[in-house]
Amino acid sequence: MNIPQDELYALLRKPLATREGMTRQRTLYLTLRDAIINGTLQAGSLLPGSRVLAQSLALSRNTVNTALEQLAVEGYVLRDRQGTQVAKLAKVSGPSALPPPVSLARGVQNLPVGVQRYSPALALTPGIPAANYFPQTAWRRLTERVWRDEGNALLNYGDSAGELRLRMAIARHLALSRGIDCEAAQIVITEGAQEALMLCVRLLCNAGDDAWVEEPGYVGAKSAFLSAGLNVSGIPLDGEGMRLDVTAPQPRMIYTSPSHQYPLGLVMSATRRLALLEYARRCGSWIIEDDYDSEFRYPGEPIPAMLGMVAHPPVVYIGTFSKTLFPSLRIGFMVMPPALAQAAAPVIGSLLRGGHRAEQLTLARFIEEGHYSRHLAAMRRLYRKRQAHLREALRQEMQVEHRIFGGSGLHLTLSIPGIDDRALVREAHKHQLAPHALSRFWLNPDAASSGLVLGFGNTSAAQFPAAVGVLNRLIVRQQGG
Amino acid sequence: MNIPQDELYALLRKPLATREGMTRQRTLYLTLRDAIINGTLQAGSLLPGSRVLAQSLALSRNTVNTALEQLAVEGYVLRDRQGTQVAKLAKVSGPSALPPPVSLARGVQNLPVGVQRYSPALALTPGIPAANYFPQTAWRRLTERVWRDEGNALLNYGDSAGELRLRMAIARHLALSRGIDCEAAQIVITEGAQEALMLCVRLLCNAGDDAWVEEPGYVGAKSAFLSAGLNVSGIPLDGEGMRLDVTAPQPRMIYTSPSHQYPLGLVMSATRRLALLEYARRCGSWIIEDDYDSEFRYPGEPIPAMLGMVAHPPVVYIGTFSKTLFPSLRIGFMVMPPALAQAAAPVIGSLLRGGHRAEQLTLARFIEEGHYSRHLAAMRRLYRKRQAHLREALRQEMQVEHRIFGGSGLHLTLSIPGIDDRALVREAHKHQLAPHALSRFWLNPDAASSGLVLGFGNTSAAQFPAAVGVLNRLIVRQQGG
Repeated sequence: MNIPQDELYALLRKPLATREGMTRQRTLYLTLRDAIINGTLQAGSLLPGSRVLAQSLALSRNTVNTALEQLAVEGYVLRDRQGTQVAKLAKVSGPSALPPPVSLARGVQNLPVGVQRYSPALALTPGIPAANYFPQTAWRRLTERVWRDEGNALLNYGDSAGELRLRMAIARHLALSRGIDCEAAQIVITEGAQEALMLCVRLLCNAGDDAWVEEPGYVGAKSAFLSAGLNVSGIPLDGEGMRLDVTAPQPRMIYTSPSHQYPLGLVMSATRRLALLEYARRCGSWIIEDDYDSEFRYPGEPIPAMLGMVAHPPVVYIGTFSKTLFPSLRIGFMVMPPALAQAAAPVIGSLLRGGHRAEQLTLARFIEEGHYSRHLAAMRRLYRKRQAHLREALRQEMQVEHRIFGGSGLHLTLSIPGIDDRALVREAHKHQLAPHALSRFWLNPDAASSGLVLGFGNTSAAQFPAAVGVLNRLIVRQQGG
Repeated sequence: MNIPQDELYALLRKPLATREGMTRQRTLYLTLRDAIINGTLQAGSLLPGSRVLAQSLALSRNTVNTALEQLAVEGYVLRDRQGTQVAKLAKVSGPSALPPPVSLARGVQNLPVGVQRYSPALALTPGIPAANYFPQTAWRRLTERVWRDEGNALLNYGDSAGELRLRMAIARHLALSRGIDCEAAQIVITEGAQEALMLCVRLLCNAGDDAWVEEPGYVGAKSAFLSAGLNVSGIPLDGEGMRLDVTAPQPRMIYTSPSHQYPLGLVMSATRRLALLEYARRCGSWIIEDDYDSEFRYPGEPIPAMLGMVAHPPVVYIGTFSKTLFPSLRIGFMVMPPALAQAAAPVIGSLLRGGHRAEQLTLARFIEEGHYSRHLAAMRRLYRKRQAHLREALRQEMQVEHRIFGGSGLHLTLSIPGIDDRALVREAHKHQLAPHALSRFWLNPDAASSGLVLGFGNTSAAQFPAAVGVLNRLIVRQQGG
């Protein structure tokens, strides 16, 4: 069975005339292929010889032959001495086929909504450090030295657990500043704290396991747990931290931010820490200790981690450089107890690929050479001042009823009764302000308090009075005042 | 109840004398804290006043007060006008407590073992591009321009789905080179292909769902599926690709590498592709099309993706720059059908944080300005030659019975009957050669063939004769020849 040649040429000439940035060969190939798939060229049809095709289409014979050869490799045509024959393909749904129905996995169907992010960050965004104070020149110089010293080897895959030199530098820093005694072998470098959370769950939890989070608490932990199919219970807080006198299913995993509770800024008391450690030990639970910004404590020194409090704690410690250096660096880490680290090593080897080696080695040198400690000290001074200025602005400008929580890190939290804080945040965006709504930190919306989380890391002192003034006006307007 | 003062001072003086890199204040704090936790200082004991303590220990009063204040903040002591009293803490397991028992999640207990990675990569390592041909100067210049143009804004979090400019550049490249018609909104930038795989599973699968992988096939896909708790079936291949005439549980997810099957190098035939698409559509399955190195095809042009073959395919396409640029870049991506992309967007927003913005924008410009196409063309020529040289070396030096599979990409696969290929690979490492064992690509070890996967991407032509000679000798020795 042959194809009427005039029909075939008509089919091919138009795409060849209008081909969009493609070679003639590719255009010919794609046009023939689509005609075969959709049945315009029927199975068993014989195509003209390549010489005839080339002449009729004003193409080189090489172009035609290469296109036909590719069709043959993929099985659209059969070529032999007799010529080129259209192959018999599986029946395929036509272009009228419907898109495949989308049903997402149960775990991700109702995740907490992520926050809207702006670039550059708007004033009052929580958790954003002061980008313009980052010592870029020193960092770039170290990066250049890393490339000069290590060369092309850096282009290759790295250690799945992250560069050894960075893990060693982190271990030394943790010993001095966080009271944690660990070896590099216990540390895994991750894509920020979020990947560390997801990795903890993957290592230690089966779908359907129970997990505890703080209520209110960090939204990213809930997302990580829910998306892995865990049953998540929000555990209320009192002045000492997570309450242990509540009824909740015995957890496999407990997420907490004991040194600076997010978002309320509490320090978990020593008694509660020890009680939680004992509880976890008794139940066979693992505690994830998220130590996201406790380097910034004023007054006083950073509060040592739970990981270093007692012998053999059932704790995985999570840290990040997103708050102390800059978020787009995406370097976080986890510290596991030795036995867990040993058991996890082959899993890490199967699931992670290392990488970002120049960045990791730059960070290692940044820590080793003291830039990191100096930057932390400078930022501690800066943020202490910024917080004082924000408090002053609140005292002057915030006329509506509110209560302030927190006193460290990069944010202050205001509870403001009876407002629609999410609507308020949307309004604030129009004024180039991006506080977070306090109510979004509750798993159970009925238990939520309304208010605002105000970041002061990326906002200069001069901005606070006007910014707080705007927020106050928006609240008053919302309250119909 | 008071503490005998001489005992207290004896307890404190030694650490203060030997403090290791810590301030006196921190040493005092930690020593007191540990004594309280372990019960040496009992609940209710009164500490001496800060003036007495300071004098007796030869410390400044400020140092003592700050340390005591921190203990009070954390609840180890209670301070009032009467003095400083040791708080009552929860009972805690002593230092003799056992480490917490480690039981890993079911999904990660028996993952395929990852390969040993060397830095720099050894000769014959599969999947490693030619690092010394990467145009580092052009790349670094673009990075500098990105920093100059974008400045500090780059330090902040980015779009969760990755930089828009990079997604647009990838969409244009895919249209021209892979026959894929997509919008930037369908693309998510990931940490290499591995994160894309894990994200697909998280988006679309519940634990316990069935998944198909190619047998033999890419080990990383199996690890991603198993670690998420999927039931994984290995589907055997014939000359056209994955067989559809086998008995296996109806899958939610099907992983395939149709343009260049890993490790066998097959091209999935057009008929089989269409049959697989129809099968997936009928069963409500999703196909993950892993297109890891199909830019490198010789002779002929890259084979278009399944994603572009028919209207509305139930396909998520996965690509990576690890093979075309360099592995430690850790930039991969996934392309979802529009409806899935729309449903997935809030999940991506909850789970990912963007980041690595300077790298992503450098890559965007690298593609936009034509460096990427030029590099691909140059590498295609280089790898074509390297493959020819490897084949020549095999013809000359490989005297044991073998069969060669593949003809594109960055590797050739040899089946070599009756060898212990994993032992062979361990021996080869001693000679600075790192082929992979063919048998590790089977899920079912009983079905596995033995052989070697030889990478030629990072190995120069001059190295092949000696390298193949070594492998031949090792095989002969193993066979007792």
